Amino acid sequence: MKKHEIRINQWLKENRARGARLLQILVRENSTRGKESSTQAIIIEKCRQLGLTLDIWELGSDELKGHPAYFCDRQSFDGNPNLVAVLKGSGGGKSVILNGHIDIVPVGDESSWRHDPFSGTIECGKLYGRGATDMKGGNVSLLMALEALIANGIRLNGDVIFQSVIEEESGGAGTLAAVLRGYHADGAIIPEPTNMKIFPKQQGSMWFRITVKGRAAHGGTRYEGVSAIEKSVGVIQGLQQLEKTRNAKITDPLFDKIPIPIPINIGKITSGEWPSSVPDTAIIEGRMGVSPEETIEAAQLEMETALREWNQQDEWFRENPLQIEWFGGRWLPGNLESDHPLMNALTSSFSEVLGVSPVIEASPWGTDGGILSTVGNTPVVVFGPGITETAHDANEHIDLEDMFVASEIIALTLLRWCGVNEVSDDDR
Amino acid sequence: MKKHEIRINQWLKENRARGARLLQILVRENSTRGKESSTQAIIIEKCRQLGLTLDIWELGSDELKGHPAYFCDRQSFDGNPNLVAVLKGSGGGKSVILNGHIDIVPVGDESSWRHDPFSGTIECGKLYGRGATDMKGGNVSLLMALEALIANGIRLNGDVIFQSVIEEESGGAGTLAAVLRGYHADGAIIPEPTNMKIFPKQQGSMWFRITVKGRAAHGGTRYEGVSAIEKSVGVIQGLQQLEKTRNAKITDPLFDKIPIPIPINIGKITSGEWPSSVPDTAIIEGRMGVSPEETIEAAQLEMETALREWNQQDEWFRENPLQIEWFGGRWLPGNLESDHPLMNALTSSFSEVLGVSPVIEASPWGTDGGILSTVGNTPVVVFGPGITETAHDANEHIDLEDMFVASEIIALTLLRWCGVNEVSDDDR
Repeated sequence: MKKHEIRINQWLKENRARGARLLQILVRENSTRGKESSTQAIIIEKCRQLGLTLDIWELGSDELKGHPAYFCDRQSFDGNPNLVAVLKGSGGGKSVILNGHIDIVPVGDESSWRHDPFSGTIECGKLYGRGATDMKGGNVSLLMALEALIANGIRLNGDVIFQSVIEEESGGAGTLAAVLRGYHADGAIIPEPTNMKIFPKQQGSMWFRITVKGRAAHGGTRYEGVSAIEKSVGVIQGLQQLEKTRNAKITDPLFDKIPIPIPINIGKITSGEWPSSVPDTAIIEGRMGVSPEETIEAAQLEMETALREWNQQDEWFRENPLQIEWFGGRWLPGNLESDHPLMNALTSSFSEVLGVSPVIEASPWGTDGGILSTVGNTPVVVFGPGITETAHDANEHIDLEDMFVASEIIALTLLRWCGVNEVSDDDR
Repeated sequence: MKKHEIRINQWLKENRARGARLLQILVRENSTRGKESSTQAIIIEKCRQLGLTLDIWELGSDELKGHPAYFCDRQSFDGNPNLVAVLKGSGGGKSVILNGHIDIVPVGDESSWRHDPFSGTIECGKLYGRGATDMKGGNVSLLMALEALIANGIRLNGDVIFQSVIEEESGGAGTLAAVLRGYHADGAIIPEPTNMKIFPKQQGSMWFRITVKGRAAHGGTRYEGVSAIEKSVGVIQGLQQLEKTRNAKITDPLFDKIPIPIPINIGKITSGEWPSSVPDTAIIEGRMGVSPEETIEAAQLEMETALREWNQQDEWFRENPLQIEWFGGRWLPGNLESDHPLMNALTSSFSEVLGVSPVIEASPWGTDGGILSTVGNTPVVVFGPGITETAHDANEHIDLEDMFVASEIIALTLLRWCGVNEVSDDDR
């Protein structure tokens, strides 16, 4: 490492408590969909203190809502803004977007949590709470890297465009809004919880809603009706089979260690209003993974074709066909060459900080990287400190050591990607 | 038929329009659970006009809530009273309870209805709407029979105790409250929708709620979690198998024509909060049929034993056992001898009015008859004009002709069961 690189690294090691404290106050705010404002306010204040140029706006422009990559069922964005905070470079260097989402998923069954999901409890070096891993911890890594540069008077050549966006968990309208507002760069890093792995490729995904019709009847004469729940069992089994067929086709070695490269997750089922009635409708909602090698449209077609087959094969479905909607969330897949300069900058920084080579894989989930790369024409790498397995789970937590190390790796990557006037470094 | 019997029958034939109109205004009121008051008000006013002795009260006494047959998850009974209206006899005759419930089940998927579910539209002799069959039509048969007697100056020897109760669809707290208030009789008729069949035996039933645990995870790494929906599929199949096993044991010829004598109906399933998350909990609610020959407790034990077996057989369930609750609705089975005098009175009246013998079967569902007979020691027959198949279904309707004929049969039964001073009859 060069002198200024060592200085930054040293500063980050000395200021770990600042990072842990920042993550704790972020986790203590509930930023589930529609409630992002109080958490966003903390990020905004942090960026203001850092002296970044702030751009704060509420989503909802006609351009956004009319865009083909806008898939969002949110009614109102009022009061819950997006933030872009820019650290202007001195010129002549490559620019970078640092993108993190501020929204979190619901806590699920609270009784499964050992701590209050919004406590931010620290125990044995781990910080617990909804969003700790996905991805407030990653955001803190970004902010600490930026603070290290600023606190040490480093002036980068290229711009750093820090983005704190809403709506990632529901399909990326926040990042799309930032792209449409004109933000793009020579590269982007998204510190989603990758277990410190580096993901040049990201699985895309999208939400589906299948409506299964039945015929109501009194439960005591249930043979007079057709149970939407019983019919749903066949649909669930069909979706499991479709998942098998699709995954059998995946050959990319980046997916070698992933049990189900592109899962079809059945996330929700709702059917029936009354224990003593035969339910006449069931709604199945889920998430379909999209391979980095295929398009959203091709994946949709494959599921729609399967549904058409089931509708043909089943006497009841012939008269009362299954309906599918592609609603809400949609994340475009991402696909960066493994030898892209951004990959080289990140992997070499990783090796230098940790003394080992990083694991390079394809991500098991969609991220906002699909929008940044496909719509925003910005090469994207996903790399972050969170623990994949605890994202969206009870007892979500992050290993703080990973968060600190990620900030060192990211800071080093920024220095090398954006460039530094080395003369000024020697002066110090 | 005797002279006064013919007169009553004639009056009922001449006043059919009154009955149709009464049913229409009853169906136009939505009396789903917690909203029974406006419909009950119409019944109360009708009984007041008939000169009956009214007893109107709101449920909720400690005696009721502490009773072993009270199974009810309702929070408040405020403003939605029970009604008992008595036509006092002159003495020396047998008394009878005429019991009907005023509550209806929800409308379900409204788009499946051809008419507004609260329109009371009459088309080709059928009246449409939620509750038309189950069981506002039956209640009108009772009230028309009473009005025929009163309008024609007939004084019965025995008391007629008309009951318009709430909560039948949720387990019978209304009828239980009437029993605990001291109302019992030598016999009872409940005009539930039997397709004009006579049911001396009634299937009991009760509600269950099974909680299936999973482990949450991000949908993209769904293999890290355990889907409560996938685990529920096995539970649903287990319940279907249990239903088969239980029904194979039913030999009573009264059940011969019933495809599934004691069904297990899975009425509701709710699981998951987010399409992209693996659901950590599923709630399955349903209704278990209880044979007239078995007890509620024996049926519960059979299901609980099955659940224990599934918990043993499945590795995940061994650590995360299925839980069962018996909540809300519970209807005790009923079991009257086929040659009971009340059966004879009803079947002979039926034959005399219609010129054919009635079909005698076991009911495919529980009624408040179980509480009246078991707790209230009152022999019960279930017989009414509604169409079993349309109860709880979209496009629920009743054949008005059946409703009118049922009122003739019930009036004749009252005359013969309660007795009439025949001298006064000859005087008229």
